[in-house]
Amino acid sequence: MEQGIRVAQYGCGKMSVYTMRYVQEKGARLVAAFDANPQVVGKDISEITGSGPAGVVVQDASRAEEELKRIKPDVCLVTTMSLLRDVEEALLICARNGINAITICEEAIFPWNSAPTITAEIDRLARETGCTICGTGYQDVFWGNLITTLAGATHRITKIKGKSSYNVEDYGIALAKGHGAGLSLEEFAAEIASADNISDGERQKLIDQGTFLPSYMWNVNGWLCSQLGLTVTRQTQTCVPQTCQEDLNSSTLGMTIPAGKATGMSALVVTETKEGVTIESECIGKVYAPDECDRNEWTLQGEPETQVVITRPSTVELTCATMVNRIPDVINAPAGYVTTEKMPRALYRQQSLEAYLD
Amino acid sequence: MEQGIRVAQYGCGKMSVYTMRYVQEKGARLVAAFDANPQVVGKDISEITGSGPAGVVVQDASRAEEELKRIKPDVCLVTTMSLLRDVEEALLICARNGINAITICEEAIFPWNSAPTITAEIDRLARETGCTICGTGYQDVFWGNLITTLAGATHRITKIKGKSSYNVEDYGIALAKGHGAGLSLEEFAAEIASADNISDGERQKLIDQGTFLPSYMWNVNGWLCSQLGLTVTRQTQTCVPQTCQEDLNSSTLGMTIPAGKATGMSALVVTETKEGVTIESECIGKVYAPDECDRNEWTLQGEPETQVVITRPSTVELTCATMVNRIPDVINAPAGYVTTEKMPRALYRQQSLEAYLD
Ligand SMILES: NC(=O)c1ccc[n+]([C@@H]2O[C@H](COP(=O)([O-])OP(=O)(O)OC[C@H]3O[C@@H](n4cnc5c(N)ncnc54)[C@H](OP(=O)(O)O)[C@@H]3O)[C@@H](O)[C@H]2O)c1
Repeated sequence: MEQGIRVAQYGCGKMSVYTMRYVQEKGARLVAAFDANPQVVGKDISEITGSGPAGVVVQDASRAEEELKRIKPDVCLVTTMSLLRDVEEALLICARNGINAITICEEAIFPWNSAPTITAEIDRLARETGCTICGTGYQDVFWGNLITTLAGATHRITKIKGKSSYNVEDYGIALAKGHGAGLSLEEFAAEIASADNISDGERQKLIDQGTFLPSYMWNVNGWLCSQLGLTVTRQTQTCVPQTCQEDLNSSTLGMTIPAGKATGMSALVVTETKEGVTIESECIGKVYAPDECDRNEWTLQGEPETQVVITRPSTVELTCATMVNRIPDVINAPAGYVTTEKMPRALYRQQSLEAYLD
Repeated sequence: MEQGIRVAQYGCGKMSVYTMRYVQEKGARLVAAFDANPQVVGKDISEITGSGPAGVVVQDASRAEEELKRIKPDVCLVTTMSLLRDVEEALLICARNGINAITICEEAIFPWNSAPTITAEIDRLARETGCTICGTGYQDVFWGNLITTLAGATHRITKIKGKSSYNVEDYGIALAKGHGAGLSLEEFAAEIASADNISDGERQKLIDQGTFLPSYMWNVNGWLCSQLGLTVTRQTQTCVPQTCQEDLNSSTLGMTIPAGKATGMSALVVTETKEGVTIESECIGKVYAPDECDRNEWTLQGEPETQVVITRPSTVELTCATMVNRIPDVINAPAGYVTTEKMPRALYRQQSLEAYLD
């Protein structure tokens, strides 16, 4: 590739500030950008990244298919939303037109276990046109390859326990409320936890219909089982309220959360497998007590037991760097919806991205 | 392979208790065992592993070549010593006779940068006979692939700092003395640190002659640079005394180490590269203060900065599990002395080892 890898950016919000700069700093070229937000459409991407003029103007997402067909970038980075159904359109456009795509949509890391119908459709189109579609992001490394790397030093795993936390104070009020922060435990049970109080059959029906709402770890557990060669027999998801011992002030909610009330929640996913290995992983979002910070902590139980801790991970940068480091993998991968546990793990790119093409 | 992978064990000490059991539990078969110690020679290996009778008797190492030639195992596990010159004979026997070998000799993880002449000779023979020789162990995962997995989520690395520690109280008095425990700082400088007070040219001469004594991280830094695509411009090694604030009792030394005196040492290896990335890694062996425990801690500096901590790693089991999990990789690898950064990272083996052969 004479002028480096040609990249399109689909979704020009917070994450794109990093992905677009990383792409450029790794010797690739941005050739198109799309967004749905009228306040972003029309801007030169340099206004978003804060770097020198790029000559690439953000276009309205309604023009994406036409433009991508014309420009034929080597890869399209999709950073819009968190559910597969919300990035479906962008991924279908790419799949139909033979354009490789990577998204940080959280569900996309392993959508086979939550949205199999859409995933199969994207897969079918991508195989037809000969491109690769995949999901990556923070979970690819910190909830995925980090764990399977340690598993490579383990003789026999009986259980994997994972715990990752974030402060809901870092996000808006909608997220804080969605996490049940400030509710009594009774209110939490009725308003938050109830959605997952469904039978296995009901859950499967939602999954088949494409209306299931997976928590982040739902897809991660599927990814881990696939990587480790485990056969899932049952998977459940529950929302567990988090509480604090002392009253806690929340500036986002504009209130003091009394001791014993919910400060947020843990979305706990438990996976049982035919091989007898259990995976229990939880993603905890809550109003932090003064001494708490972001943590990513996993334990592999068995022979031997190993615990890994990442303190204060820089989630945004790690997500975007992983996405950009994945570009050569996605170009190199076979056609279809290829989840990253089937690719080499993400690698550091010392050189220009094109140096890593097969 | 009808009856599973056939494995020979070379060195039947503490590590072999684990490697031999792991081999059997992963569906492979032990077909020969060797040791130089007359107290071990003649034992059935089940007396070593504590499992049921195996019908395999430990033979004197002097018979290894003849026996390996006759038995032709698929792989030979070498767990005897820490320096390449001390495992050279075992590896040459394997290389000459077309038998794949894996060793946990610490230098063997990347011996190209400390014993290039022996390594090249083993490599030449292995290519001729079509087998693979490699080094693995704790460092393969915890000082190697763990770090490069995190690097895969990093945009730009400026420096990698690693620190791994062990308690010299867990080993014999010879090791404690070798680490300078109990010495004053003047004595430490004269007796311990002086060996590495040599010019780059003198060090290179030792390396070329095959008489250089690499500390563990010497080879690890070479492995990391090779994996990350970095070109080493200079590498140095120094022994730095560790001290404590309060008097410390050492049962191994049978003395109290006064505050301010050496409790042990850090072997610090600093690598500079053409690409501007620095690697500073140290292996600390000292008499622990009451609140200290084994730790493996690495920081990747750059964009972003990430820190990983493994608390209380079970080094022995992790080493042996990694070695056994590496068996399919070594059988699958091309011929020669192939360091593990050129192989897929070590993976968990849920199934029998032979299921992972290409
Ligand atoms: N996997 C991971 O590790 C990871 C990590 C961080 C973030 N994420 C996810 O990545 C996504 C983006 O994050 P962000 O912080 O960049 O969000 P953001 O700042 O809200 O940016 C998203 C941009 O995409 C636009 N958009 C939304 N739907 C669109 C569509 N259908 N077509 C075109 N543009 C659309 C948005 O417009 P409007 O403002 O008009 O909606 C907004 O400008 C989020 O879903 C987030 O959860 C994943």
